[in-house]
Amino acid sequence: MPRISAKGQAMPESPIRKLVPYAEAAIKKGRTIYQLNIGQPDIKTPAKALAAVRNNNIEVLSYSHSAGFESYRTKLAEYYRKHDINISANELIITTGGSEALLFTMGSICDAGDEVIIPEPFYANYNGFATASGVTVVPVKSKIEDSFALPPISEFEKLITPKTKAILICNPGNPTGYLYTKEEIDQLAEIVKKHDLFLVADEVYREFAYDGAKHYSIMSVPGLEQNAIMIDSVSKRYSMCGARIGCVVSKNKDFMATAMKFAQARLSPPTFAQIASEAALETEQEYFDEVIEEYTARRNTLVKGLEAIEGVRVANPKGAFYCIAELPVKDAEDFAKWLLESFELDNETVMVAPAAGFYSTPNTGLNQVRIAYVLKQKDLLRAIEILKAALKVYQG
Amino acid sequence: MPRISAKGQAMPESPIRKLVPYAEAAIKKGRTIYQLNIGQPDIKTPAKALAAVRNNNIEVLSYSHSAGFESYRTKLAEYYRKHDINISANELIITTGGSEALLFTMGSICDAGDEVIIPEPFYANYNGFATASGVTVVPVKSKIEDSFALPPISEFEKLITPKTKAILICNPGNPTGYLYTKEEIDQLAEIVKKHDLFLVADEVYREFAYDGAKHYSIMSVPGLEQNAIMIDSVSKRYSMCGARIGCVVSKNKDFMATAMKFAQARLSPPTFAQIASEAALETEQEYFDEVIEEYTARRNTLVKGLEAIEGVRVANPKGAFYCIAELPVKDAEDFAKWLLESFELDNETVMVAPAAGFYSTPNTGLNQVRIAYVLKQKDLLRAIEILKAALKVYQG
Ligand SMILES: Cc1ncc(COP(=O)(O)O)c(C=O)c1O
Ligand SMILES: Cc1ncc(COP(=O)(O)O)c(C=O)c1O
Repeated sequence: MPRISAKGQAMPESPIRKLVPYAEAAIKKGRTIYQLNIGQPDIKTPAKALAAVRNNNIEVLSYSHSAGFESYRTKLAEYYRKHDINISANELIITTGGSEALLFTMGSICDAGDEVIIPEPFYANYNGFATASGVTVVPVKSKIEDSFALPPISEFEKLITPKTKAILICNPGNPTGYLYTKEEIDQLAEIVKKHDLFLVADEVYREFAYDGAKHYSIMSVPGLEQNAIMIDSVSKRYSMCGARIGCVVSKNKDFMATAMKFAQARLSPPTFAQIASEAALETEQEYFDEVIEEYTARRNTLVKGLEAIEGVRVANPKGAFYCIAELPVKDAEDFAKWLLESFELDNETVMVAPAAGFYSTPNTGLNQVRIAYVLKQKDLLRAIEILKAALKVYQG
Repeated sequence: MPRISAKGQAMPESPIRKLVPYAEAAIKKGRTIYQLNIGQPDIKTPAKALAAVRNNNIEVLSYSHSAGFESYRTKLAEYYRKHDINISANELIITTGGSEALLFTMGSICDAGDEVIIPEPFYANYNGFATASGVTVVPVKSKIEDSFALPPISEFEKLITPKTKAILICNPGNPTGYLYTKEEIDQLAEIVKKHDLFLVADEVYREFAYDGAKHYSIMSVPGLEQNAIMIDSVSKRYSMCGARIGCVVSKNKDFMATAMKFAQARLSPPTFAQIASEAALETEQEYFDEVIEEYTARRNTLVKGLEAIEGVRVANPKGAFYCIAELPVKDAEDFAKWLLESFELDNETVMVAPAAGFYSTPNTGLNQVRIAYVLKQKDLLRAIEILKAALKVYQG
């Protein structure tokens, strides 16, 4: 019998999918589950984006340019210019989600055995893309007691070897909700320039910054043009995760030419989704203002609620829509399973993502969970109530 | 300055894109170009598929299941069962085009340095996916004088090493148009079973078989269940290349579980495109009958026209919509460039794909081109006329 590859065996299972069988069993039992485990917003997709697809008059649904519609790239570059990122249409490639942008990037800058330094905890699928590309993830630990701020630059420097090709950050962070300051970004810029590394910033949550804080992109750092690679996506910005449209942005010509070869091999990004994404650029500021207001309120509700539970510690998120909470349990994965298998409050329970899967260092974050605040406030409040009651039962 | 990877440098440029700058220059000069170089059909997408997208009532465009809509997978499995492929919904994963199915497959069965044997000439992007996956393509030569039939099995056997993981075929073939017989498939089945290899069949042109010939899928071979992996796509079947929907099909559970981990890392295939693809399954047989009739007529026109040009040899295609033609020139790439740069007949010219890019062995197929018969007959006739006139000028 033929065998699968070592790479295939090494591909990690997503930590947010691990619990799915338990959730399915709970649903079969008739339980209602408050899903705090996934980053699937309940926010409506902008009407203009959906209307553009409904009003399309395509007769032959043909391949688009491998870099994406020229009209879309042109308007998207304009969008970035309005957001202090001075790029032109040929400095970006439309990809099938930020996911594909990450894959193209790893392939373009890393060979098998090369290393990428990533502050942990980090978006778990970086592990999958790294494994698929033969890349070794080298974690540098950020801490809940610092709200997951950038680890000291000296910690990065210790980890740089001849195999290091890049530092990868997620800003604002999934799963941490941390928003890097200009000073932190500038420090990273210095170190990558000093060591001739790429700085890859996953900015798919760039619009989600709260409390008046402003997101500072690596693409806005003067002098970083040759090192900076930005990953972006329409998934969260317009609550259109199912479109599968993202992009990779860089002013480094060698990098862009290389990423383009990966793009050509897979022919083109999805056409209907590009139509939706191009139309989504017309979304009024009002939509974002409302969304930010809603997420801020949800975050406040969540953090306040969690902090009121004895033994729970939260890092107050400044961006994205996740937070990491430390629970008064030894093994958060066991607790998360137990919530689905054995607990109910009036036939309702809660699903959270054990945080260990977001750490690359073994046995780290074992007592933490990631909570996505993608539910309405009323539901968040109820979920917190259930969590509180559950912890009491579980602990004793 | 940071540098791109050796892998990125090794990524091949697509042979059908190489000439694009020349074509753009010709268009700027006001030339009309008959594009015989790409597999983008002009056939209309089934109205039902397009209508389903226009009539969608999505409000939140969310991620779908990583394996694709369950409803779509269920109906697609039914479709295959009607076509002598006895599979169930959990034996297939919906992918972003056949392209992604190929990537998942290589990643799941090959490690860096592993080998895949492929009859050449082959679909050029196999090189790209192989390079991206660190896989070595080992070509086995098929010949125009045999109409690109399966090379003798002894030729495959000579190439098998401990690093060989699979034999990859394209059936019907792009760029050859060759349709493997049941006997040829059975021979391949024997050899992969004997050597514990996977047999990967790219069957994205499975519906395009002419002259009453019947396509024989590797999924229909009894006893091959653990070795067979099928790649499929809606791109050509329904002339919906821009959807970006394909699938990978296998009864090998280890393989499917592994491919699923790759699928989960990239979250989900595009939602609108899945809606279109699911609806496309309702397409009446009449649509296919008409399409097959049209392609058969085009093929006949093309082959007859090419054979009437002195010094041209064609392998008569039995499937797909490509053929390889040997031209009375030394360097078909030079000729193809010259057609765009320097030739015109009443301000019109022709674009063909030099075939060398479809061979992995250096200096092979230098006097061959691939011609896609994706134009209406009238245009094909005119294109042949131009080609004939051009050859006369170029030769003398
Ligand atoms: C940090 C981060 N990066 C990238 C992605 C990938 O998103 P997509 O492929 O939908 O653009 C996600 C999705 O959750 C994410 O959280
Ligand atoms: C032989 C073959 N395989 C796979 C593909 C990929 O097609 P898609 O990704 O559009 O499904 C093509 C496209 O031309 C092809 O010709």
